[in-house]
Amino acid sequence: MWEQPEDINDINLGKERLLPSFFLMVSGTMLWPCFGHAYVMKFLAGLSKGPVVSCALLLGLLAQDVVAAPQPKSDWVQNAKSRKKMTDILNGKIRRDLNTTLCSESAARTVSAPKQNVWGGLTDEEAASVVSWLFAQPDLNLTVSENATEWDNTIILVEKLAPNKTDALKYIDGCAAPPAKYAHVLLDHRSSVDAYYQDIKVGPLPLDNATASWEPLDYYLTKKNEGKVRNLEADHDRMVSEWIYPISASVADITLDLWNATAMGLDNDTLSIWGIDPLWQDDGRIIRWDTFWNKPTDGFDVGTLLPLGLFFMSDVTGRDPSQWSLEGWLYNGIFYKTTEEFRKAYWSPGFEKLGANVEGDWTRTDQQGPVLPMDASYPPTQVAPSASRFSVDSEQQYVEWMDFSFYIGFNRDTGVSLHDIRYKGERLLYELGLQEALAHYAGFDPVQSGTSYLDTYYGFGPYAFELVPGYDCPAYATYLNSSFYVSETTHNHLNSICLFEYDADYPMQRHSTSKYVSVTKNTYFTLRSVSTVGNYDYMFSYTFSMDGSVAVEVRASGYIQSAYFAKNQDYGFQIHDALSGSMHDHVLNFKADFDILGTANTVQLMKNVPAQKVYPWSGGKARNTMTLERSFVESEDQGRFNWAENSATQVIVVNQDAKNQYGEYRGYRVLPYTGLCHLTVKDSSNLANAARWAEYDIQVTKQKDTEPRSAHAYNSQDVHDPPVNFDKFFDGESLVQEDLVMWLNLGMHHVPHTGDLPNTVFTTAHSGFQFMPSNYFSMDQSRQTVNMVRIEYGGGNASTVETFGQKDDTCALNFTPVEPDLVGYKGDVVIRKFPFDPNDPFFETDSI
Amino acid sequence: MWEQPEDINDINLGKERLLPSFFLMVSGTMLWPCFGHAYVMKFLAGLSKGPVVSCALLLGLLAQDVVAAPQPKSDWVQNAKSRKKMTDILNGKIRRDLNTTLCSESAARTVSAPKQNVWGGLTDEEAASVVSWLFAQPDLNLTVSENATEWDNTIILVEKLAPNKTDALKYIDGCAAPPAKYAHVLLDHRSSVDAYYQDIKVGPLPLDNATASWEPLDYYLTKKNEGKVRNLEADHDRMVSEWIYPISASVADITLDLWNATAMGLDNDTLSIWGIDPLWQDDGRIIRWDTFWNKPTDGFDVGTLLPLGLFFMSDVTGRDPSQWSLEGWLYNGIFYKTTEEFRKAYWSPGFEKLGANVEGDWTRTDQQGPVLPMDASYPPTQVAPSASRFSVDSEQQYVEWMDFSFYIGFNRDTGVSLHDIRYKGERLLYELGLQEALAHYAGFDPVQSGTSYLDTYYGFGPYAFELVPGYDCPAYATYLNSSFYVSETTHNHLNSICLFEYDADYPMQRHSTSKYVSVTKNTYFTLRSVSTVGNYDYMFSYTFSMDGSVAVEVRASGYIQSAYFAKNQDYGFQIHDALSGSMHDHVLNFKADFDILGTANTVQLMKNVPAQKVYPWSGGKARNTMTLERSFVESEDQGRFNWAENSATQVIVVNQDAKNQYGEYRGYRVLPYTGLCHLTVKDSSNLANAARWAEYDIQVTKQKDTEPRSAHAYNSQDVHDPPVNFDKFFDGESLVQEDLVMWLNLGMHHVPHTGDLPNTVFTTAHSGFQFMPSNYFSMDQSRQTVNMVRIEYGGGNASTVETFGQKDDTCALNFTPVEPDLVGYKGDVVIRKFPFDPNDPFFETDSI
Repeated sequence: MWEQPEDINDINLGKERLLPSFFLMVSGTMLWPCFGHAYVMKFLAGLSKGPVVSCALLLGLLAQDVVAAPQPKSDWVQNAKSRKKMTDILNGKIRRDLNTTLCSESAARTVSAPKQNVWGGLTDEEAASVVSWLFAQPDLNLTVSENATEWDNTIILVEKLAPNKTDALKYIDGCAAPPAKYAHVLLDHRSSVDAYYQDIKVGPLPLDNATASWEPLDYYLTKKNEGKVRNLEADHDRMVSEWIYPISASVADITLDLWNATAMGLDNDTLSIWGIDPLWQDDGRIIRWDTFWNKPTDGFDVGTLLPLGLFFMSDVTGRDPSQWSLEGWLYNGIFYKTTEEFRKAYWSPGFEKLGANVEGDWTRTDQQGPVLPMDASYPPTQVAPSASRFSVDSEQQYVEWMDFSFYIGFNRDTGVSLHDIRYKGERLLYELGLQEALAHYAGFDPVQSGTSYLDTYYGFGPYAFELVPGYDCPAYATYLNSSFYVSETTHNHLNSICLFEYDADYPMQRHSTSKYVSVTKNTYFTLRSVSTVGNYDYMFSYTFSMDGSVAVEVRASGYIQSAYFAKNQDYGFQIHDALSGSMHDHVLNFKADFDILGTANTVQLMKNVPAQKVYPWSGGKARNTMTLERSFVESEDQGRFNWAENSATQVIVVNQDAKNQYGEYRGYRVLPYTGLCHLTVKDSSNLANAARWAEYDIQVTKQKDTEPRSAHAYNSQDVHDPPVNFDKFFDGESLVQEDLVMWLNLGMHHVPHTGDLPNTVFTTAHSGFQFMPSNYFSMDQSRQTVNMVRIEYGGGNASTVETFGQKDDTCALNFTPVEPDLVGYKGDVVIRKFPFDPNDPFFETDSI
Repeated sequence: MWEQPEDINDINLGKERLLPSFFLMVSGTMLWPCFGHAYVMKFLAGLSKGPVVSCALLLGLLAQDVVAAPQPKSDWVQNAKSRKKMTDILNGKIRRDLNTTLCSESAARTVSAPKQNVWGGLTDEEAASVVSWLFAQPDLNLTVSENATEWDNTIILVEKLAPNKTDALKYIDGCAAPPAKYAHVLLDHRSSVDAYYQDIKVGPLPLDNATASWEPLDYYLTKKNEGKVRNLEADHDRMVSEWIYPISASVADITLDLWNATAMGLDNDTLSIWGIDPLWQDDGRIIRWDTFWNKPTDGFDVGTLLPLGLFFMSDVTGRDPSQWSLEGWLYNGIFYKTTEEFRKAYWSPGFEKLGANVEGDWTRTDQQGPVLPMDASYPPTQVAPSASRFSVDSEQQYVEWMDFSFYIGFNRDTGVSLHDIRYKGERLLYELGLQEALAHYAGFDPVQSGTSYLDTYYGFGPYAFELVPGYDCPAYATYLNSSFYVSETTHNHLNSICLFEYDADYPMQRHSTSKYVSVTKNTYFTLRSVSTVGNYDYMFSYTFSMDGSVAVEVRASGYIQSAYFAKNQDYGFQIHDALSGSMHDHVLNFKADFDILGTANTVQLMKNVPAQKVYPWSGGKARNTMTLERSFVESEDQGRFNWAENSATQVIVVNQDAKNQYGEYRGYRVLPYTGLCHLTVKDSSNLANAARWAEYDIQVTKQKDTEPRSAHAYNSQDVHDPPVNFDKFFDGESLVQEDLVMWLNLGMHHVPHTGDLPNTVFTTAHSGFQFMPSNYFSMDQSRQTVNMVRIEYGGGNASTVETFGQKDDTCALNFTPVEPDLVGYKGDVVIRKFPFDPNDPFFETDSI
């Protein structure tokens, strides 16, 4: 009765293993030397109509493609390690006996990436050579960071310049050599009155004094001025010590009276002072609004929960402090133009003095309250009895899980990104990654009202801290390092990216009848990193499933930035004695550069609409029913839109030239998963043109090498004329069968309530989308897994339990809580690049 | 530096363990005998202003409350068993040695429910006594099902009548006796020309011939006619054998020519015939549209994937077959008024004959295609090293996990439901459960166009099949049975409800700085059941989290109901040779009867809106910013609405009389979680008044004993005048500080694509909402768990790893794949009720 299934059908090609390196194959009369995936060829031979490239450069390529022999590494820098060590198991904690086999636990298997990771970083040697070369260029007039004053020029950043897609595709899809390698350098030019940052390009690498050069880097900015953007923080240190603290000291009588605390610029200050971001930029003036905060003293990072409600405004235009001016004070909703005016009012009878926010248990994340019933017993935990079932090339940061593969990129601004994401050998996405994260506040007071953090100014890379195994990711996960550049050093975040499989608490598929039940496990694969940008912890998860779907999810925890409660009722809940949970919108922009069966793609919209219809069979009467309306996004003029009311519209990336055998477009659907939103504020006064990407849910543009990112880390420095004004991406170009990029926003309207104290929790602070096959294959791909069961039953017995070749031996597992291992938590490892000193790493971790 | 936390603050009361039974306590001058939760009293003594009841009935109540001694049970009926057995572990598969302690694995602990479960079912004895009593009532003129013809009256259903909330509260919150117990009986009255179903009430139980009586049950229906609704299927069996098959046989020449198949009403028929649901009800006529389907032969339940595209219409009004008439045929979009007309056209030259849908690998759920790399190794799996950390009273179907508790209900129409859901002793919800599930199709053909399944007609209870451990729920889950009544028997679904804790793949909370990292595990608790109503498998999950949030999620798998492809382009994708993925809306209505700090509640709406504002400090200039707009849902006239565009509006159930110490309303927010929708079709011609609940996302009414459910299982029998017309719940009553019910819709617009073949997958077919505390406590409640860590680090070392008393010993775990256990899969156990024969259970499982 039960027939043997045949091979999965034609579109649904089976996976063949990657060849370990390059290979030759004769297909008809052509050589196919450059495809790392064996079944790309099988696929091309079948369905694909993509261009066919014959390569003469084969031998040269092969020579170039040999990965340099790995350098010997220090212990701390080893990649792809798993926290669960076989040695623990073998070390006498558990012993084999005659009845059990030890379960196998080990790190991910190694694999050789089919191509070089052209989105990777620089090697230590390359970074050091660039820094050294830069200091040798007299025209740049650079000073080493630790010797630099605020009137010197310094190097802010040295990292690999991502290749243009045009060039990269020639390499990864064709037979070209890897794109020439350049360094992206960011200079902080403060030696002149008009301080500016400048993006420059240095190369080619490896540097050769004969060919090396630098040039301004602005081809990828919408603002064309040699990669320069003004630096509003050029005098930051002096401004704090010589401008802010004198002001706060000048009201020490008041701060002592109000809070028994002072901010004098001394080590034992009990107040801290900070304010709006970006600085207010209006009519050519640069305005600061600062406020006082209680300084936490008990070790918890709770500063953002302790605002005190006194604000002052400074005009800090230009670099000449003599031109700066104090513009006024605000307390309890009353504005005072001068310190004298404020002091006079303050010491007048009847002045209303409000309470302070002071740390306490409510700000502490530690366990508190009676221990919950049975909570001191082990909670359930995921284990990996058969080790990691995926492969990693830790040198090339390349990953294979089941039929998925991708490369990992990492940079200072946006942290982790994924590249050349393939499924069954075909690329789904050329690039998938964060572009920018906005936290736009509003409030009655000028600091909350004026705060609109553009977090890549701080960077997601530098704050991608070491993950905590067993908590942030399963203990058995594979952990990778990442690195970023700071002041002539490279910081290495140990174990800052994790990779793991996980068994969802629900199956992939099931069906029951009175005679049988069929159920399939849902084992998925996740890449994760967490960046803590100041008060907030963003957890980024990229998840791949057996059905070919991909999910991107962001969860938020950490401390909220709160507001002083006075007059803030229309901008937040009051959540503690003198505290308002300051309302804010999180919007996070992701780039999804789809390549669905090639780069010629179109976005199809398919909408469920109510309809009244008369049918040949309905006796001439109309019926109230529904129908589908299909359309395409024709051009960039239609390219910005929101999720439809009642989830009515499907958004599908298709290739109009790749219909399936039934005439439907093969594509991937972008599916809202959880909690999406765009920015509430219309034409934000804080941001002007700096975050136009935040204004819609979905935005589609034609892919251009000159528009690689929707934002720039220094957009906050010139909000009216930022380096990247996303609006300018939209110039009416056709989006029909073009190489398309979708700019998708995740987000959350966050109105913190008492449950956000001490920290926001990941359970309800989440946002995500999914990409799912839409007529892409001829059937569900999860049918390929063996981790399913079919039980035939009747009369109280199961007559058949078909397990499809699943492993079913019992094995012994040493259940080791992760806690004893956590003493290995290290933080960042730093290597000096100038002078280059690879053999003297030291530990130093920075946070905002 | 790190201070010891103090006790969690006042609102955030710590849990004290439930007392095993009733107790007395003197609090001031009053007795508090009737509260099972110790800290309800602590709470009342502190914050609550609820009424205080002094009870004279104490001794009597105590006597009544003694739970009857448990009956001896057969092996198959034992509750609360865990699939992982300690005996396996002790049975020599793994041995203790000096270095390891065995992990403990066992079922949930037992606890005594503080009250009787008044939402539970009847005992076997009670059900048998009701059936016996009914057959003794001559006025009912009942016939035993197996002897009944279609002109006899039968008993369709005997189950416990849920108590009115008014009565139940007096018992669970006060000192009243448990509400009197009645049976809800459904009769199928077919002995007269006007066949009807009738809801009646029988009791009180236990039955005593002196007091027992029956009465029509219609106080909880909007239609007032003694609980009667017409039965359109009274002649179903005869209609199939004597009406449908003769018609299909009359075109055997055509069906043989087209598909080499026939439907003659014989055992070896190769075609099946079925059609629209509900039947078309218009102008007093009852119309069938039926169509031909290939009969699957290879064991898989794929009938709904094999439509053949030939349709016929019958007028089957009334019970006199001589008055029934064949009204026409439809093939390839052409309507033929008679069989002769159709036959003539068919056999004419040039008649276009279209292809058939035939089963194959594309319809089979078994593993197919090459085995994925490493897939034959064990995937990661969740284990429970410390056994179950929750407690169950399997007699009373009462559950406690951490600070949550609830009772489980189960009935034929809607399956599982949750009652008296409490957190930290305070009730959050009086009732939470499914009301009805609609699958509304549309299509060019009359069968798809006319199909709008109201699934409680079939019932979620009867198809809540045995769950597959290790697949549907973790192997270590605790499984409970459920039961339903069919034809003088009670069917027992073994292991049809599962309870388990699970470690989410992400933490609850985290925060990193350069000096420390704090992370908390996210262990949640889930109750799950799966109902397979015909082709579709609905997985219902109720999830509780340590932060006090509750999630309701439905996922859908199983076989789609597909359409024949001809002319159906505007109603679905073509997904196979002659197949259309028939578009349909799933909408599932849930009742959430919130009681937030009492029954006087109000729904607050809080909206983020863009705003232009001038501030005292903004120099007279307006800023583009945002603000909060708060309002209340004042009456039922405002009680029906949708989720706001851009997720702008928070929906919060508050008690206006329960402000926290900061003046904010304590409440629970209803948060869209994933994939919500309401019905696309406006004023559906198929449904008329039968599913008005499907037309909005959120609907709020005043709680009434007369409006316990938004639908009725037989609404499909009279769509214009159904037993429950949800529209009638809305009569303008005030919703301010009233006892409120929220009727929330989950749903999915489903346009099946090739990835739905052979089965829809749970990964992307999902819908859910969350309830989260909103200023309900003074801080996050997950701080109470010990399963968190704080690591202080620096200089490459962790100086402190604070684990808060977590268990951290290594223990030995026997990892046993669940497969060998699956031979224990049994299906349903049936017990005959008339004659009552509890000692001769037999196995029989039914599916649609």
